[in-house]
Parts: sequence; structure tokens; C-alpha cells
Amino acid sequence: MTGTRRGAGATGAPITLLTDFGLADPFVGVMKGVIAALAPGARTIDLTHQIPPQDVAAGAFWLAHSVPYFPRGTVHLAVVDPGVGTARRALAAWGRGHFFVAPDNGLLDRIVPSLESIHVLDADALGEMLRQALPGARPRSTTFHGRDVFAPAAALLGRGETLAALGPALSGEPPVTLGAQPPRVEVVDRFGNLITNVPWPPDGVGPGEAPALVRVRGRVARWVETYGEAEPGECVALLGSVGTVEIAVRDGSAAHELGAGPREPVEVVAR
Amino acid sequence: MTGTRRGAGATGAPITLLTDFGLADPFVGVMKGVIAALAPGARTIDLTHQIPPQDVAAGAFWLAHSVPYFPRGTVHLAVVDPGVGTARRALAAWGRGHFFVAPDNGLLDRIVPSLESIHVLDADALGEMLRQALPGARPRSTTFHGRDVFAPAAALLGRGETLAALGPALSGEPPVTLGAQPPRVEVVDRFGNLITNVPWPPDGVGPGEAPALVRVRGRVARWVETYGEAEPGECVALLGSVGTVEIAVRDGSAAHELGAGPREPVEVVAR
Amino acid sequence: MTGTRRGAGATGAPITLLTDFGLADPFVGVMKGVIAALAPGARTIDLTHQIPPQDVAAGAFWLAHSVPYFPRGTVHLAVVDPGVGTARRALAAWGRGHFFVAPDNGLLDRIVPSLESIHVLDADALGEMLRQALPGARPRSTTFHGRDVFAPAAALLGRGETLAALGPALSGEPPVTLGAQPPRVEVVDRFGNLITNVPWPPDGVGPGEAPALVRVRGRVARWVETYGEAEPGECVALLGSVGTVEIAVRDGSAAHELGAGPREPVEVVAR
Repeated sequence: MTGTRRGAGATGAPITLLTDFGLADPFVGVMKGVIAALAPGARTIDLTHQIPPQDVAAGAFWLAHSVPYFPRGTVHLAVVDPGVGTARRALAAWGRGHFFVAPDNGLLDRIVPSLESIHVLDADALGEMLRQALPGARPRSTTFHGRDVFAPAAALLGRGETLAALGPALSGEPPVTLGAQPPRVEVVDRFGNLITNVPWPPDGVGPGEAPALVRVRGRVARWVETYGEAEPGECVALLGSVGTVEIAVRDGSAAHELGAGPREPVEVVAR
Repeated sequence: MTGTRRGAGATGAPITLLTDFGLADPFVGVMKGVIAALAPGARTIDLTHQIPPQDVAAGAFWLAHSVPYFPRGTVHLAVVDPGVGTARRALAAWGRGHFFVAPDNGLLDRIVPSLESIHVLDADALGEMLRQALPGARPRSTTFHGRDVFAPAAALLGRGETLAALGPALSGEPPVTLGAQPPRVEVVDRFGNLITNVPWPPDGVGPGEAPALVRVRGRVARWVETYGEAEPGECVALLGSVGTVEIAVRDGSAAHELGAGPREPVEVVAR
Repeated sequence: MTGTRRGAGATGAPITLLTDFGLADPFVGVMKGVIAALAPGARTIDLTHQIPPQDVAAGAFWLAHSVPYFPRGTVHLAVVDPGVGTARRALAAWGRGHFFVAPDNGLLDRIVPSLESIHVLDADALGEMLRQALPGARPRSTTFHGRDVFAPAAALLGRGETLAALGPALSGEPPVTLGAQPPRVEVVDRFGNLITNVPWPPDGVGPGEAPALVRVRGRVARWVETYGEAEPGECVALLGSVGTVEIAVRDGSAAHELGAGPREPVEVVAR
């Protein structure tokens, strides 16, 4: 089936965008312009554009945890791309019933094991399609492949093209992955909650059971079922919405109070 | 008519979103994924996702003042939900020709008097619908009902279901409201303008008339018709775009210069 | 052809929005509500809402550089409007195959030379149309013409009306422009890169050639083809994605390291 699966066009599934471009500049808007030009019927949904600059691991974490909430056939366009302009490959893939378009730098880390089909983007051909649709577009830049390479690829999938239309099937090295990580804080959300990479419950522990211990930076967090059980200012741990252990401070910021951020080690003793 | 009014599907009216989730994390994007899965034809419009964390009053203020600018049949999905995971009720309602979906915590405060029909969301049934549409979705969380309960409810209204499809008609206690507030700053906008809850003009005062006095933190603000009348650095008051008294500093931030923010008392003497 | 060209409705081209309103308040959402009410089939794309407050030059820069990436017939709605409520004119125009709606204050600066048709918005008539579509809308404010004047104008173009439907053809003074600017930093992007107004390569210099010198605040920036060529912490210059010289610090912020921001003079010696 490699490369013959049809894109999302027929089903009306959306194209999601996840980048580290922020919203202060029109970079994201310009990518949507490219999509509107190449796939007029497609619609886009922003996952987030505030991945910390060049933080591929954070992008990979949020992408993988967002995918289950989108309909089959969705195209996920992810661009956190410190290697833009270098020889790093650019990929389009199919797996879990979704399409993915991203640089080959670990951003698809958690998705890779379930990919059924992977192609390498042909940047020259995509650029040519872009220039044909938008004659005023500049030659391919060395700094903004989100606009010049990835958005055109996602747009083509969004209008029903196959992976094969974007470039050849992957041969050679498998996609870059990030390797196993120790238990740690993966991202900090807007409320200052520390979201870890520790799934809960692990095999053999019942769904309602609490861990014996959750500790970050020497501070033990009491396990609760909801934020509401915490005392004001108390540091608690709970099962977060993505299915991993989360550390919070009621009416405060756990990140600030514990002085902890991404990559901070976390100790979770199951029982 | 309770519970029998049809949703927005037929008219193409949008679903608006107002939350305190911020845009740094993909929480809002995931809610839109749920909506896309359950109501493929619906489209969403962001009101704002930067309500100060857990500030129900600010959410209620902006929601009420935004409603008149949306077409009949719009679904307004509002989630500022400090009580998530506790026993607080979740509501869907119809009034003023619009639908509303929100936790029962005062977020609908200014809308309640005009509601014609109010239902209580059946979180179990909505979660079941979500899992059927998205088999990879996690069990209902205790921390993110925006995704697990409210977005499915808004999506169903957006595809034309009735309020009755979301849960039983409200019985028992009426919806939570915030009670009467003294004259005060309600929100601070991006420019540092202080937007008050004091409507202008009050009954008996003509549309072009100025108040006799506007004072905040001991500082008297001169009444002007437009920002352009103010001298650089001058503190002025004027009729703001939502119809209440607004305090501004030309080429500066009134919030910063006066050291005033939400809930700061304001003195307005009509004549 | 003045005033007879049809709007974007037939082609499904989007309406873009560029403002300095930020996303903390629902001002942008309310503009989209107005558009949804007047042009139910139109869809919107955000360019950015984080133009620095009242920075018309930054808005003009980003608008002009974004236009080539949108399909023919797109309506560009731009509101950076320090003169709101004063007698400044409001314009709608056609040129380069796109529509533009903006205050007459220089925001269309780089677009003006290619405009084929320019009309002055009739704020009273537009307000009347708004009130008919949205009976609960407030009388025209003196502070928020984005909602009361510009969004209705863009919506009408978005549903296929002509420029003539928005007001009379421009007579009298030509549109405001910003005048020639010396070589300088024009905007700072999210990564702290300094984006200049110096196009590269100039006439007579080949596409692959490097300038002899790029200097900002006494610091010479080495010319590179991609970010990847820079040493960690090195200050480099390169051809940016909009086609002008850009100054960057690898793994850092050029704005911060050089203490430079918008309007900082830049020296580029071609050869």
C-alpha cells in the first residue's frame, strides 16, 4: 500500500499545524496561504506554534499526544527544524490512520513505530508546484522550509494526492528517533503544571491506584484524583489529561515553586 | 420549546471558543480536533484563550460582550473551569438566539437572565460518543473537561442536535451567577486600557454627554470622545467599544501608569 | 475597471487579518463574528495580531511580504490604526490580484504603487449594514473601527461585492505612504533575528554572491548560506526568507546580543 493511500481531501479531514514559529510574525499565516493556494478546500487547525524554539522533544511529545483526538485522514504538519537548510531529510508518512509531514529530526519520534509508509519529500518538485500556483513566491529559501517545502506537501495530501506524489519512498537510514528517555518533566503547561513522560498506571497497577511516591527536586507530591482535592499552595501529583503523571501546585505554578522545567528528572515509585 | 430547538448545523453558524488555556500548549487544538471529528462541517472562531487563569469574571465579561457580534445560531463554548473534576455542573443553554456550553460557575453570569432553556450535560454519555468517534481517545480525565465533555457537547450542537441530546433539562438550583459588582475595572486590554463595568450613558443622560467625574486611584481622567483628543501621556476616559467607561493613557498603558488592574474600584459621577 | 471588479466570493479565496490587537482580548474574534454574520461562506486566516502597538511600518512590512503567498482574490484586512476616531480615511483597494482594506495611514505603503483601484469606505453605510445583520451591535464606536467599519468592508468583498459597494472612488490626496527608508532593521522575529529592509541581491550582483560587508552596531556579521553554517554564538548574516538581508546569532537572539531592534541602522556594502 506504500505511497498509494489517498490523501484527506475526500473526507474533509483537517490539516493540523505544530511549529516553534510563534504568532508574533506572519510565518504561520503565510504557510496557511500556501495551503489555501494549493488546496482551496482544506482547512487548518493550529495545535500550537509556541513549542520552545528548536525543542524537538517538546514538539514530538505534544504531537503524539494530540493525534488521537483528530479524525482519520488528518494531515499533521509539524515544523520544529533547527537543521533547516542543511542536508537533513524531510518526510511525509502514513500511520495510525493519519498523515504526517515533518523534518527528519526526531519530531516524529513517538509516531515512527506505527508508521506504515514513509516517503522523502522532493523539495525541488514541491517548490516548482508552489511557484506554479503562486508566481510571486520567492525561490526556495534556506531558512523557511515550512513555507517552501512542508506546507506544499501537506496541501497536496490535503487535496487528496498520494504520498508518492511528494517524493520517493524512504530508503536508507530509518527516521531519526530520540531514544529512550529517563523519567522526567517533558513540558510545562500554561498553568505551570509539570507534565511528565511517566505513563500511569503502568502494567500491573490498577486504574484507580496511586503511586507510592512522586518526587521532583526533593519535594514529595501528594497523589490526588483532581486539582480540587489539593490545599491552596499544596504540591500534588495526579493523572494528567494525556495519561502521564503531572505535578501541580494549587493556585500556583509548580514550575515556579519547584524551580523545575523540561528535562527535570522525576522519581515515580509505583508501589 | 425547551430542548427541542435545533443546533447550528443547518445555518452554518460558527462555534466560538473562549478559555483560559493559553496557546502555548495544544489544548485548544485538541478541542478543535474533537469538534472536527464529531461535527466535520462545523467551523470554529477563537474569542480568546488568554483569559487570566481561573478568572471566571473576566471570561463572563468578554463572553457577554462578544455575543452580539455573532450570527444567530452560533454555539459559544466557554471553559474557565477551576472546579474541573469536582461535582460542579456542566451546562448547555439557549438564549438570545445563541447556544452556550460552559461549566456552571458564573461564566454565563450576564447571559443567565436571557436564557430560555438550560440543560445539564451528561458527561458519561458525551464521553461515550467521543470514544466512539475517536477510539484512541483516553478515558474521561479529571483535569480537561474542555476536551472530554464541553467540546463534544458543542460539536453536537454544531451539527444540529438539540439540547435534549446533551442531557436532561436543568432542575434544582438555578445557574451560578456572580452577583452585583461595584463600579470597577473589569479587564485590562492589550494596550493597557482599563475597561470598566460602568455602562455609559446611564438612563437619563444623553448619548453625547460627558460624566461629571471619572476617577481611578485618586487620578481624575478627562472625558474625551476619541483617543486622538488626548495629549501624549494624558489620562483620559471615554466611551469604550463595549459600551462601558474606559480609562486610557495616550501612547502609554493606563494599567501601568495608574497601577490599576482588574477589580480596581472606579468612581463615575454621572452629572 | 475601477469599482467593478468582483470580490473573492466566487473563488473561495480567504480573508487575511493583520492587526496590533493581540490575542489576549476577543477583539479579533469579534471581527471574525462580524465577517461570519455578513459573509457566512468566507473563511479567515490570521497573518498576525502582534504587530507592536501602533507600529504602522512593521504592519506595512509584513503585509507586503505576505501577499505573494496567498491566492488571487484574497482580501487582506489590516488594522493598525493609531488615528482611529479621527478624520483619517479608510480605504479598500484592488491591486496585484488582491483586495486590501485598511486605514489610510501608510499601512498599504509598499502596496500603493501597484494599486489599480482605490475606494474610500463609507463608514455610515457600512455601519448600517452591520446593524441590519446584527441588531444587537452597538452604534459605531470611536475606538474600534476594526469591528465597526473594516470587518464589514472585508466581509462584503469576501462575499463578492465590488469596491463600489463600499464607498466612492478615491479623489483628492493619494494614499499616505511612509517615504523612503534608510537601510535598517525593519522587524525582529520570534527567534530574535533582525530582518532588514535591504533586498538581496541588488541589481548587478549575482544570486549566489555575498555582500562585502554587513555591519550592525559596530559588529560585522559573517555571510552564510544557512543557519547551519554558523558556529554556536556566532553573529551571521544571510538571505532571509522574505528576500532581504537578515542578521542572526546561532542558538541565540541577535536582537538581544547586539542590543538592536526595529529602526536600527544597518550597513550593507554590496561589493
